Amino acid sequence: MFLNQRITIKTACIFCMLFFSISNFAQQPADFVNPFIGTSNYGATFPGPIAPRGMASISPFNVAGKQNKLEKDSQWLSNPYVNENTFLTGFSQVNLSGVGCPELGVILLMPTTGDVEINHLKYGSTYSNEIAKAAYYSVDLDKYKVKGEFTASKRVGVSKFTFPKGKSNILLNLGLGLTNEEGAMVKVVSSTEIEGMRTVGSFCYNSPEDAYPVYFVAKFSKPADKFGIWKKTPKYEGIEAQWMTYNGKTRMMENSIKTVVGDSIGTYFTYEFDKKETVEVKIGISYVSIANARENLEKETGNKSFEAVYKETYDEWNKELSKILVEGGSSDDNTIFYTALYHTLIHPNTLNDWNGEYPVIKRNKIAKTTGTRYTTFSLWDTYRNMHQLTSLVYPKQQSDMIKSMLDMYDENGWLPKWELNSTETFTMVGDPASIVIVDACLKGIQDFDFYKAYYAMLKGSNQTDDNPLRPGLKEYIDKGYLSTNYPGPVSTTLEYNTSDYAISLLAKALGEKDDYKRFSKRSLSYRKLFDKDLKLLRPRTPNGKWYEPFDPESGANFEENVGFIEGNAWQYAFMVSHDIKGLIKLMGGEKPFSDQLQKVFDSKQFDMANEPDIANPFLFNYVKGDEWKAQELVKKLVKEYFLNKPNGLPGNDDTGTMSAWVVYAMMGIYPISPGDPIYTITAPMFHRVKIKLDPAYYKNESIVIERQINNDGKINSIEINGKPLNSFFISHEDFVNGNTLKVIQN
Amino acid sequence: MFLNQRITIKTACIFCMLFFSISNFAQQPADFVNPFIGTSNYGATFPGPIAPRGMASISPFNVAGKQNKLEKDSQWLSNPYVNENTFLTGFSQVNLSGVGCPELGVILLMPTTGDVEINHLKYGSTYSNEIAKAAYYSVDLDKYKVKGEFTASKRVGVSKFTFPKGKSNILLNLGLGLTNEEGAMVKVVSSTEIEGMRTVGSFCYNSPEDAYPVYFVAKFSKPADKFGIWKKTPKYEGIEAQWMTYNGKTRMMENSIKTVVGDSIGTYFTYEFDKKETVEVKIGISYVSIANARENLEKETGNKSFEAVYKETYDEWNKELSKILVEGGSSDDNTIFYTALYHTLIHPNTLNDWNGEYPVIKRNKIAKTTGTRYTTFSLWDTYRNMHQLTSLVYPKQQSDMIKSMLDMYDENGWLPKWELNSTETFTMVGDPASIVIVDACLKGIQDFDFYKAYYAMLKGSNQTDDNPLRPGLKEYIDKGYLSTNYPGPVSTTLEYNTSDYAISLLAKALGEKDDYKRFSKRSLSYRKLFDKDLKLLRPRTPNGKWYEPFDPESGANFEENVGFIEGNAWQYAFMVSHDIKGLIKLMGGEKPFSDQLQKVFDSKQFDMANEPDIANPFLFNYVKGDEWKAQELVKKLVKEYFLNKPNGLPGNDDTGTMSAWVVYAMMGIYPISPGDPIYTITAPMFHRVKIKLDPAYYKNESIVIERQINNDGKINSIEINGKPLNSFFISHEDFVNGNTLKVIQN
Repeated sequence: MFLNQRITIKTACIFCMLFFSISNFAQQPADFVNPFIGTSNYGATFPGPIAPRGMASISPFNVAGKQNKLEKDSQWLSNPYVNENTFLTGFSQVNLSGVGCPELGVILLMPTTGDVEINHLKYGSTYSNEIAKAAYYSVDLDKYKVKGEFTASKRVGVSKFTFPKGKSNILLNLGLGLTNEEGAMVKVVSSTEIEGMRTVGSFCYNSPEDAYPVYFVAKFSKPADKFGIWKKTPKYEGIEAQWMTYNGKTRMMENSIKTVVGDSIGTYFTYEFDKKETVEVKIGISYVSIANARENLEKETGNKSFEAVYKETYDEWNKELSKILVEGGSSDDNTIFYTALYHTLIHPNTLNDWNGEYPVIKRNKIAKTTGTRYTTFSLWDTYRNMHQLTSLVYPKQQSDMIKSMLDMYDENGWLPKWELNSTETFTMVGDPASIVIVDACLKGIQDFDFYKAYYAMLKGSNQTDDNPLRPGLKEYIDKGYLSTNYPGPVSTTLEYNTSDYAISLLAKALGEKDDYKRFSKRSLSYRKLFDKDLKLLRPRTPNGKWYEPFDPESGANFEENVGFIEGNAWQYAFMVSHDIKGLIKLMGGEKPFSDQLQKVFDSKQFDMANEPDIANPFLFNYVKGDEWKAQELVKKLVKEYFLNKPNGLPGNDDTGTMSAWVVYAMMGIYPISPGDPIYTITAPMFHRVKIKLDPAYYKNESIVIERQINNDGKINSIEINGKPLNSFFISHEDFVNGNTLKVIQN
Repeated sequence: MFLNQRITIKTACIFCMLFFSISNFAQQPADFVNPFIGTSNYGATFPGPIAPRGMASISPFNVAGKQNKLEKDSQWLSNPYVNENTFLTGFSQVNLSGVGCPELGVILLMPTTGDVEINHLKYGSTYSNEIAKAAYYSVDLDKYKVKGEFTASKRVGVSKFTFPKGKSNILLNLGLGLTNEEGAMVKVVSSTEIEGMRTVGSFCYNSPEDAYPVYFVAKFSKPADKFGIWKKTPKYEGIEAQWMTYNGKTRMMENSIKTVVGDSIGTYFTYEFDKKETVEVKIGISYVSIANARENLEKETGNKSFEAVYKETYDEWNKELSKILVEGGSSDDNTIFYTALYHTLIHPNTLNDWNGEYPVIKRNKIAKTTGTRYTTFSLWDTYRNMHQLTSLVYPKQQSDMIKSMLDMYDENGWLPKWELNSTETFTMVGDPASIVIVDACLKGIQDFDFYKAYYAMLKGSNQTDDNPLRPGLKEYIDKGYLSTNYPGPVSTTLEYNTSDYAISLLAKALGEKDDYKRFSKRSLSYRKLFDKDLKLLRPRTPNGKWYEPFDPESGANFEENVGFIEGNAWQYAFMVSHDIKGLIKLMGGEKPFSDQLQKVFDSKQFDMANEPDIANPFLFNYVKGDEWKAQELVKKLVKEYFLNKPNGLPGNDDTGTMSAWVVYAMMGIYPISPGDPIYTITAPMFHRVKIKLDPAYYKNESIVIERQINNDGKINSIEINGKPLNSFFISHEDFVNGNTLKVIQN
């Protein structure tokens, strides 16, 4: 029995593995996506459907109304959906994923039953049975016994509502929204079609004058029995108020096809169903015009059924996600990995319409592209790893993103900083576009005008007057750093250094020796801010003295801090990944460096949720003998912060930056020095990772990372194509031109 | 010398008359139009250009800002321009003439110089050198040394600005306006074109849910060197206000071609001129769509110069005004007459676009006409004389107006009451459309479906439930009058009686004997409100008692009054022109009747400025021997109230009703009993009046009214075609089929 039992167990295990393997075989990468990840803990992702880099998306909207724990108007809240909330007031048709400021989250579709009620606080409902998958979301609205299902193509959101028998309504609320902006226009074209626009913008409370319209056309699969528009007018206070019996009241305009504008308007389509019925609503989006929104709708979804659109978008996701195939992880590992990869494929997203049209920066004309015009460049975040991932796995997309950035330069005179829907929001600090472009260029993605790119970088880094990208540039060039005359001077100095380093690399590649020298030198100027006593970077006043009083710990959790932006001296202490060797020297050698780095973690100053220090765990690889610390830390952080749960991101996903971090971390490589085509190596978290390479950019078809674990311990050796690497670093060139990177652990 | 002197004087007089005659010959009817008449004393006309029954018009807008004596927001003010005001803030592109409620007066064009200033209280200017003629208005803006000239085609306003050298701007303010409504949308299409819409409506603070858009396209003859949009956003009060550095501030959006919506928005076009320069701006209007506004602009004015458009519209005016030729009046007489005729040719006005499209009542679809869809039916006013004048002189227009009314019936289920731009405003009381239709029908204008018309009238006069035209109809039918359960019960009873009388006439003509009897009887039911003691009409309470306390004089000057609408018992005492013989009987004979009528005037209860009593002066013709009183009164009233001055109308022109009164009064005939094709005769104020008749409707080419004055005294006799008439009344048929009506005075 005993023997038998053991055999049985073994057999069971074989079956189990077989089953897992079959199950793995049956489950496609897209099947592992769990869009709920990041919908709690301020991850700011949304669970609803979107196509890869899509313009349209649908999110359940549950951040309005005091019934909700996190209410959009009671605090700085940047997401249309919060997993813990319970009161749903619609389904928004344009959304941002993983950003830190409230924006979009507008054009709210909402099914109800019974009499038309247009106050969202009254028509909102609790909900049950949420299902979220790649390209699909569904939910039951408790109050109405209505099931909502949602999918999307690139520029069209498709909603399918299953109504019970009786009077049903589909509301389109153009007042309520996540954005700070107000103002909309709507016209019911017929009993099956609505067109209009909603104003959005002033992202992060910046560039209010660039607030802009998102245009839409909504088509309904069944003609409404009755339709109408509502408008809530503000209360008039003047002498005429005495004659306005309707003052401040909501107006209901039935079956009217006039154009209505206002801050608080919407439409209702009403049906009388004598049995359970479904209605599909397709909403085409455009940032150019209503006509383009209509064309996007027709060309992308035409008469396709909900199921057909879902199938197509699912297939698109699966194709994109299958560019990396992982083996040997748990189901949760797979889910965490593919959901992260999914989240890196949402932004930057498509701005151009089906016909190629898009509004240029500042919206002074409509231009046309034959490729893809990308938008939503949260570059302060994404220059660190997200674009590196895109260069590796999706180089065509990366190339189009760079082309988009260069077009922005043509339009605006400057490379983007934090561009959103052709608005330069000037959010955050630094000049990160240069880094992204250089990084791609040095990885061989060069099918764009890199001389123009270089020129643009030089402009951003040389023009001392009226330079919106680099305020304080003159002082920086003169002194090597920004003084406390400027906000976050240490952080900004580091950002400029990092950009200058990237520019120096391109200058070198282009044979521009003088520039190379100049920018190399500039990239090291942060050293002037190194306080030897503290072994930290520290702000200086305009007269060059250390800023006093100085508390290295202040500035965490977004407190105001004289030296730093979104962080403190500890969190920024190592943000010179291009000069770690220099920093080691400044700190007095590898040991003090390693100790100081360890202290960041030990003193709980490390912030996994914000970008300045996210490369820190990997920096132990610069200290011979301490590489195991990098391996352990990375593993620990992945396990601690990245979960197959709504709170499974450490904080704002930052348009995929946190997700790119975990994708790299789980693969066991990390682009340690932005702009520099180099990876550092930690322990992969899968047995095998196969990255398919785009033959238009890479010689090899794919590159495989293999893990060989003996005792699940420290990395013992690393081989590339069977030969010892003898380093914890590998150049991008060696990596992509190899066949197999094998990591052998003790 | 003495003799010589006398001869000289006589010669001078001959020269003088010769000169006058030549001058008369050279001056066309259109040249006599003085659009300033009615721009003071609440006449509510505007001095700017409009085509006959045009959709577009331009008015200088000088009712905003405390600099102005009459300020639009400080009181109930219904006109875009007041002659006494001095501070001009733009030129509105759609306007109503002679109405009693603030409406339209929007899309304000304004030339300025120097830096762009968008606050109208700051950019407004005093002005000089106003010239107003048919189809033309010009003015100099003191502050800017800019000359503005204006003309209009039917659907397009054309402005021409002459700027001095330097920086100049043309503002299009979509916030400021006369209407009570707010909300606009605008998009700069290019440096020469703007498109958008402005919300208007809730006329007389009624039907707010029917507020509607007026669409426009503006084309500039010269491309702007710079353009932009401004938007003043309301101040946000929530928690986010702390992050909105821009909260409540005006945003300037330069060279942007995005769609902007808001309550307080506008555009600026800026020019740098190195010499004196002109810019022409054409603004096409539509109530259907922007596309139609553009088509209206292109088809009507295309590349035509300002001068060409002016010439065409002037010719149109001259053609229309020449339908009546007067001789022998002074220049002022001519001006008063032709300006009055001009004012009767403004409303009802064209609603349909060049392509025939127009929004139906309630705006639930766009319909198309091959004729003209008319709008602005201020029927409570115009049923009394304006439509009678139109039937006589412009029968094709009257026919199209009736067709428009019947289309409204098809669209809305009811004939119009006070229709404006396809909104039934339900302003005033009564069911006046029936009267207008019957009046025309009985005058032989029958090229419309008069069975449908009859059916529509019956519906309005029979349906006791949910009848928006005749509230209280059940009580009226049951008791013969409305009790004090309803507002203005005496007035409303009289209105219903008048309509019922008209319906009875049509019933008779159609051979509908029962209806004829029933409505004849109903038309006399006002008699139940006759208080024999007071010899006045008096409200009854629901239980049939006289309403107490009763002050026949209260209710003048728009004081609230239990029995009456806009008037008191004295002013309404004779408003039964269809039953003056019955009223004479009620009053105890001709003498008491005449005495009581005289008392209205002697006690200063007569109100020339409001409709209920405007037929009163003519009623003396019903008293044999007192006809001279009618002649004298009419003459006196014309001289007193109708002047060639801005205050030359007695009050609101009421879309031409006051003007129609004076046109008739000066011709010496008056349509004394609305619905009944009959005129009563007083002394003409010209030697000769020739009315050209439309051969499509009338047998004769024209009819001439001649005056023969012997001692400028009472009418001695009246001849039709040389034969004595032996009456102070003449049927429409006899009148139009005669050749000459000759009035011989003592």
